Amino acid sequence: MTTLAPRIPHGLFTSGEPVRSWTVSTAKPVRYEVAFTPDVLDPRNPALARAGTSRDGPAPARRLLVVEATVHDLYGERIRAYCAARGLRHRIHVLAAHERLKTMNSVFSVVEAMDRFGIARRSEPVVALGGGVLLDIVGLACSLYRRSTPYVRVPTTLIGLVDAGVGAKTGVNFGPYKNRLGTYHPATETLLDPGFLVTLDRRHLSNGMAEILKMALIKDRALFELLDEHGSRLVTERFRGGRSLRPVAEEVLGRAVHGMLEELQGNLWESELERIVDYGHSFSPTIEMRALPELLHGEAVCLDMALTTVIAERRGLVEPSERIRVLDVMRRLGLPVWHPLCAPDVLREALADTVRHRDGSQRLPLPSGIGDAVFVGDLTPGELAEAARYLKEYGGNGHA
Amino acid sequence: MTTLAPRIPHGLFTSGEPVRSWTVSTAKPVRYEVAFTPDVLDPRNPALARAGTSRDGPAPARRLLVVEATVHDLYGERIRAYCAARGLRHRIHVLAAHERLKTMNSVFSVVEAMDRFGIARRSEPVVALGGGVLLDIVGLACSLYRRSTPYVRVPTTLIGLVDAGVGAKTGVNFGPYKNRLGTYHPATETLLDPGFLVTLDRRHLSNGMAEILKMALIKDRALFELLDEHGSRLVTERFRGGRSLRPVAEEVLGRAVHGMLEELQGNLWESELERIVDYGHSFSPTIEMRALPELLHGEAVCLDMALTTVIAERRGLVEPSERIRVLDVMRRLGLPVWHPLCAPDVLREALADTVRHRDGSQRLPLPSGIGDAVFVGDLTPGELAEAARYLKEYGGNGHA
Ligand SMILES: NC(=O)c1ccc[n+]([C@@H]2O[C@H](COP(=O)([O-])OP(=O)(O)OC[C@H]3O[C@@H](n4cnc5c(N)ncnc54)[C@H](O)[C@@H]3O)[C@@H](O)[C@H]2O)c1
Ligand SMILES: NC(=O)c1ccc[n+]([C@@H]2O[C@H](COP(=O)([O-])OP(=O)(O)OC[C@H]3O[C@@H](n4cnc5c(N)ncnc54)[C@H](O)[C@@H]3O)[C@@H](O)[C@H]2O)c1
Repeated sequence: MTTLAPRIPHGLFTSGEPVRSWTVSTAKPVRYEVAFTPDVLDPRNPALARAGTSRDGPAPARRLLVVEATVHDLYGERIRAYCAARGLRHRIHVLAAHERLKTMNSVFSVVEAMDRFGIARRSEPVVALGGGVLLDIVGLACSLYRRSTPYVRVPTTLIGLVDAGVGAKTGVNFGPYKNRLGTYHPATETLLDPGFLVTLDRRHLSNGMAEILKMALIKDRALFELLDEHGSRLVTERFRGGRSLRPVAEEVLGRAVHGMLEELQGNLWESELERIVDYGHSFSPTIEMRALPELLHGEAVCLDMALTTVIAERRGLVEPSERIRVLDVMRRLGLPVWHPLCAPDVLREALADTVRHRDGSQRLPLPSGIGDAVFVGDLTPGELAEAARYLKEYGGNGHA
Repeated sequence: MTTLAPRIPHGLFTSGEPVRSWTVSTAKPVRYEVAFTPDVLDPRNPALARAGTSRDGPAPARRLLVVEATVHDLYGERIRAYCAARGLRHRIHVLAAHERLKTMNSVFSVVEAMDRFGIARRSEPVVALGGGVLLDIVGLACSLYRRSTPYVRVPTTLIGLVDAGVGAKTGVNFGPYKNRLGTYHPATETLLDPGFLVTLDRRHLSNGMAEILKMALIKDRALFELLDEHGSRLVTERFRGGRSLRPVAEEVLGRAVHGMLEELQGNLWESELERIVDYGHSFSPTIEMRALPELLHGEAVCLDMALTTVIAERRGLVEPSERIRVLDVMRRLGLPVWHPLCAPDVLREALADTVRHRDGSQRLPLPSGIGDAVFVGDLTPGELAEAARYLKEYGGNGHA
């Protein structure tokens, strides 16, 4: 996988074109695991204690756990009991994490905890327990620390379970920009335990539903049908519910994760800039940051999806009946379809930054029917303003 | 190169071991160029204007250049003239860079300049001109910005030419720790122009000689012979000199770069922690940071090499006559072999941090004769203290 090719062996110091040069060509192998792991804090379950180390090796000696503050309030005792029962020498670093704390200062706090712990370079993965914000922060800290330290993710929110916990991206906001600084550094292992959702409030469940709906709209019509039929109950019952809801919850989560990994695996470093999973993420980064702390990530994503669904309908890509169903599902999932920041000038600026992010072209994913997507490069400010105007009315009076 | 293997398709929510899991397995291709490019600021030389973009594409439109402050004082006009002559729309961000400014704040300053410039994600590589500190800072900023933006390196110091400019590492210091935060993110292209050395002061030339001597000691005896014979003249004449010195200068620089790339290419991400190029970098990170700003990077590296040369002699790996030659070459290159910080407690702490960095083992490269190296894992504090004591005397009165 590696070649080093010195091109011209001599002639240094003569003027003109390069006269002595090398090409370094290699590839970095990356491998990671994502596994549903119910009852991850049950002391009888060895998964967490073993995660991120070779399964055959001796029991792990030490762990630094970074636990989000609310998660610590709710689960701190169980985490300690788990570590005690499994003989894990450990320290817990508690970190408050929400969108406004998604900063380099939070990354530094994790770095300092790693310094104090005196973490070894490869054999003591940091364990991160929390929502998407905490996972992104810890991921970035571990990515930077000694130019990369392994870590393990235990997502505790719905966005964490189906999105932030399963990919490779880390990041923090910088200045007015969402996720402006970050890296690609997947956790060696991610343990998905939907049991954490029982304590999550409804709004954050709706929020996570937005990312599931994204997968449904761009590539999985069957998932959309499940959301249409059961989505609001899944939110109310926090993915638990009785015997009848259980298989549905399993299928919705499984499909969301599988769909996401399918899209990521061939394009983990985004060498391809046309990404359907960018759907809902063209205008939302700017809207989310300007609205802070009013809108949650998934809510901003949903505004973006509502906008592009209407645009797609205007372009004949989506049937009026499909647009009506989509907006209706959004509403029933408890998600917004319009916000005052969906204004022409904001949307124009958002598009301009996204064009820079996509290297000079729009590469804008639009839904094509329900469950498929296309890319366009010719969206006009007029179309944007028109769609926003429509949604303002729709969102205002609740009628499609 | 990519496989996504869902392991067990069903059974989520039952208790115990992971019941539904995926393995993501892929590889990130990396390719970069390092080329000697004399007269890089000569307007007739297209290399800099083209660097980092496809050679066949249209002329580049815009560039953000990050130029180290002293380099800007010395070469700013020529840089502007070059850009003007080649029709490069550009902005220059001037950044003071030395070891104490090798911080995340300097990285943020580059990030803000990138934001102001509104840089495109892939097609507008940032151009970095400066020494190792500036290159490491810009490299980290570009690595983090939108999770990676391409850049071009133009090293202007000797360390930059033979070391910091040719590898993949970026980084900044954090707290008391050297290069604690960083990434692997090589420049798409590095242009090496030894012409910048004419303005570099002697001490920084000696400093760069330390990294060249490192390559010589661990893998290139012929390079050692060249340094022994011509090293001090190369320093005095700044790698220029007359007709007789020119081919020597070329060979020394070429061998140093080639040797470095040979070591890096198969181990760019340091998956292998036994690295002979870590020679001189076991104790020096701690010494350099504690001595700040007194010792330069290469000076600290040289203290480390002197120490380990003596240890290697005591272990029978190096002949007494070789040890004498090595210490003598160091002295003639203008490099120190002892410093008050080479004290038992400092060295012990330095070793402890290096053991963490090498994941729990010393993996300490020691010279074996001149031009070869071995790894040991059983260095004792006693050996360290004894070698330091010897060098104190040697360094104190100048005799071996
Ligand atoms: N890296 C990625 O690929 C990726 C993908 C999608 C989203 N994200 C990022 O994820 C973030 C959003 O994540 P989020 O929605 O998880 O938000 P979040 O991390 O802010 O968590 C939401 C809230 O839930 C609380 N909480 C967490 N777990 C809980 C639990 N089990 N019970 C009760 N409360 C709990 C937290 O204290 C927090 O206040 C955004 O910053 C977004 O950019 C990243
Ligand atoms: N990334 C890597 O792989 C790697 C390898 C080796 C060293 N490094 C790092 O490189 C740094 C040392 O680099 P350095 O020795 O270049 O130090 P430096 O970057 O601090 O530069 C030394 C000084 O030279 C001045 N200068 C630069 N170019 C000049 C020129 N042409 N003429 C006159 N003055 C000039 C600068 O203003 C600075 O004060 C250390 O921080 C070290 O960790 C990194």
